[in-house]
Amino acid sequence: MVGAPPPADKIIRFDDGSYFTFPQLRWSVSHFRQLMPTVEVARGLGAPQPLQRALRKDIDSLRFTPLGSKDSMTWEQSLGANYTDGIVVLHRGRIVYERYFGVLKDSGQHGAMSVTKSVMGTLGAALVAEGKLDPNKKVAEYVPELAKSAFGDATVRQVLDMTTGLKFSEEYADPKAEVWQHAAAGNPLPKPKDYTGPRSYFEYLQTVQHQGRHGEAFGYRTVNADVLGWLIARVTGQNVNEYLSEHVWRKLGAEQDAYMSDDSTGTPFAGGGLSAGLRDLARFGEMLRNDGRYNGQQIIPKAAVADIRRGGDKQLFAKGGYDLLKGWSYRDMWWVTHNDHCAYMARGVYGQRIYVDPKAEMVIVRFASTPTAANAANDPTTTPAFEALGKLLLAKPK
Amino acid sequence: MVGAPPPADKIIRFDDGSYFTFPQLRWSVSHFRQLMPTVEVARGLGAPQPLQRALRKDIDSLRFTPLGSKDSMTWEQSLGANYTDGIVVLHRGRIVYERYFGVLKDSGQHGAMSVTKSVMGTLGAALVAEGKLDPNKKVAEYVPELAKSAFGDATVRQVLDMTTGLKFSEEYADPKAEVWQHAAAGNPLPKPKDYTGPRSYFEYLQTVQHQGRHGEAFGYRTVNADVLGWLIARVTGQNVNEYLSEHVWRKLGAEQDAYMSDDSTGTPFAGGGLSAGLRDLARFGEMLRNDGRYNGQQIIPKAAVADIRRGGDKQLFAKGGYDLLKGWSYRDMWWVTHNDHCAYMARGVYGQRIYVDPKAEMVIVRFASTPTAANAANDPTTTPAFEALGKLLLAKPK
Repeated sequence: MVGAPPPADKIIRFDDGSYFTFPQLRWSVSHFRQLMPTVEVARGLGAPQPLQRALRKDIDSLRFTPLGSKDSMTWEQSLGANYTDGIVVLHRGRIVYERYFGVLKDSGQHGAMSVTKSVMGTLGAALVAEGKLDPNKKVAEYVPELAKSAFGDATVRQVLDMTTGLKFSEEYADPKAEVWQHAAAGNPLPKPKDYTGPRSYFEYLQTVQHQGRHGEAFGYRTVNADVLGWLIARVTGQNVNEYLSEHVWRKLGAEQDAYMSDDSTGTPFAGGGLSAGLRDLARFGEMLRNDGRYNGQQIIPKAAVADIRRGGDKQLFAKGGYDLLKGWSYRDMWWVTHNDHCAYMARGVYGQRIYVDPKAEMVIVRFASTPTAANAANDPTTTPAFEALGKLLLAKPK
Repeated sequence: MVGAPPPADKIIRFDDGSYFTFPQLRWSVSHFRQLMPTVEVARGLGAPQPLQRALRKDIDSLRFTPLGSKDSMTWEQSLGANYTDGIVVLHRGRIVYERYFGVLKDSGQHGAMSVTKSVMGTLGAALVAEGKLDPNKKVAEYVPELAKSAFGDATVRQVLDMTTGLKFSEEYADPKAEVWQHAAAGNPLPKPKDYTGPRSYFEYLQTVQHQGRHGEAFGYRTVNADVLGWLIARVTGQNVNEYLSEHVWRKLGAEQDAYMSDDSTGTPFAGGGLSAGLRDLARFGEMLRNDGRYNGQQIIPKAAVADIRRGGDKQLFAKGGYDLLKGWSYRDMWWVTHNDHCAYMARGVYGQRIYVDPKAEMVIVRFASTPTAANAANDPTTTPAFEALGKLLLAKPK
């Protein structure tokens, strides 16, 4: 998309769907606002809070062994292997490593994909800690519109931890998967004339049916995050982008506005619509690492961060079928490793990550645009790299 | 558009066209990014440059006589009469007056409408002053794609001053007016299946035909600004939003990113697509008032600002038929009053204004959402109010 105009065969359009295929995706993930309507997550009008720098030269050569491999590789090699667009590492709050590739620059916002869910989960955990959202109440008590859907008799906790039993397939390869109905409902473009389905995220959520029982297994379903977005909006009286701005982004000393895609009724896509600056998400991760305190303020209650760190039910998680994430759990829409550094992670398709390693006092944020959506494709060259870096920083704090 | 979701009869959608009718317009003009794709005019990552305040209490009671009226009214009364969303007055660079109404807040961006043209004209005048754009060259020498259109044999100067002879009607009430073909081409939504017309602003511009001869009369036509946008992109190698960001917005110490709507090929709407913060447009106006120098830097060449201030050909302007703007001229896409304060103005439909009064050392920026598009409807309660305030500040500078 360079030139005035760009060459015809280089134009990426929203409505033909190609924007979300590789390699066009490499451009699209840094330009979602140019493809679709968005709502602002305002940083406010004050001066950003600068991040200190203490760059290290011993990171690129760090070696680790990818999952399922016999041969080791270097950290620097992993950047290319993971189609990295941008990566930043904070140690004790200072930037020790920062790189950009492709079309992303430090002044720019990249799609966070399902990392959005963890941001929403953080807001949800905070509202629980503040007593504004009762985790034991049924969803329908807050959102009566969902009473007849599968969400109606799920608890807020089950939504936060995705242990709801839902008839909702996210098999993108299956054109009949419910995820496509969800996408069609939320698509901000005009509906086709013969379209008779739901016309917004909230309308779609009301149609989701039961499958299995709530509370019996972890089942990763984007719609839980959209329901959480509705819960947040209902109890706070603000759309999630506004609430996120007022209660987090403005307090972080963010250097850029973030934004969210939204449907035709103005509802932000809580399941995956956030785009943000790399360093601003690092500020967000650093705030969590500091028990919710950052930039001189308690932004998220300490109890909420403790709840995320503690993790969810490992047995329920094991039923979710993630072979590469054995022993992990899922809590408040965060992936909790339960490794010896107590690290927890936000994960988005095509390689997006926030990785908080409390023991190493480290936060990593990575934006990427991998050819394969599922993170199982890049976990082998990601998780052990992040763990190895945590060990390095713990051993040699400098 | 308040609620989760908003009530069905309060939802404003892009595709049904209602967003651009009164009263929905009052919301839409502050939320364009939520209705359509946009590109960023980044302010950069540094700290904003604060504007000093020296608020005055003698402005609201200032009396003036609206054009064509026998009875006077107060400045404060004019705010309601003009459906003001936000207004700020700088005197000697300090904020002496600032008010917000409706849905606009100081943290928010409002559609500048055709004020966009004056921003583009400023860039054009700067490129002329820097020798990068020759005002005497034909447009086709820079953009060969326009050779067969009416623009091909127009000079850059004629485009900048809108003295081109074009078959292009902006009569919105006429469904056959060319402005609707222009809008259809630039509309970022998918084209209807039976649509055979141009599919982008640049494609549309190539179809514009001659009517009359270039250089014989002022004729206000939005497409001139789009051609200027193409000229800027061609000689700078950047889209106008990027060029505006790098050469102006980042240097102004702006406190918010601005943005522009764009067509499906990513081309920003140079004729009217800018949305910006009220105080940031005031910084822009103040930069011009200071001969292009602001925030410690020469942002726009002094010669470019002098060219705007000097104005255009009054006789050609008189042929444009603006009864309320007698004695004015049009230069570099600015409206030049030639009043005794040498004021010049950027004007956008529904009441948008930047008003620079060099003699009174005053800059006014107003955002509004009037029921009537044409500014002739609000000029009577606007121009004399601005002039009266210039006289007050000149007489009582405090």
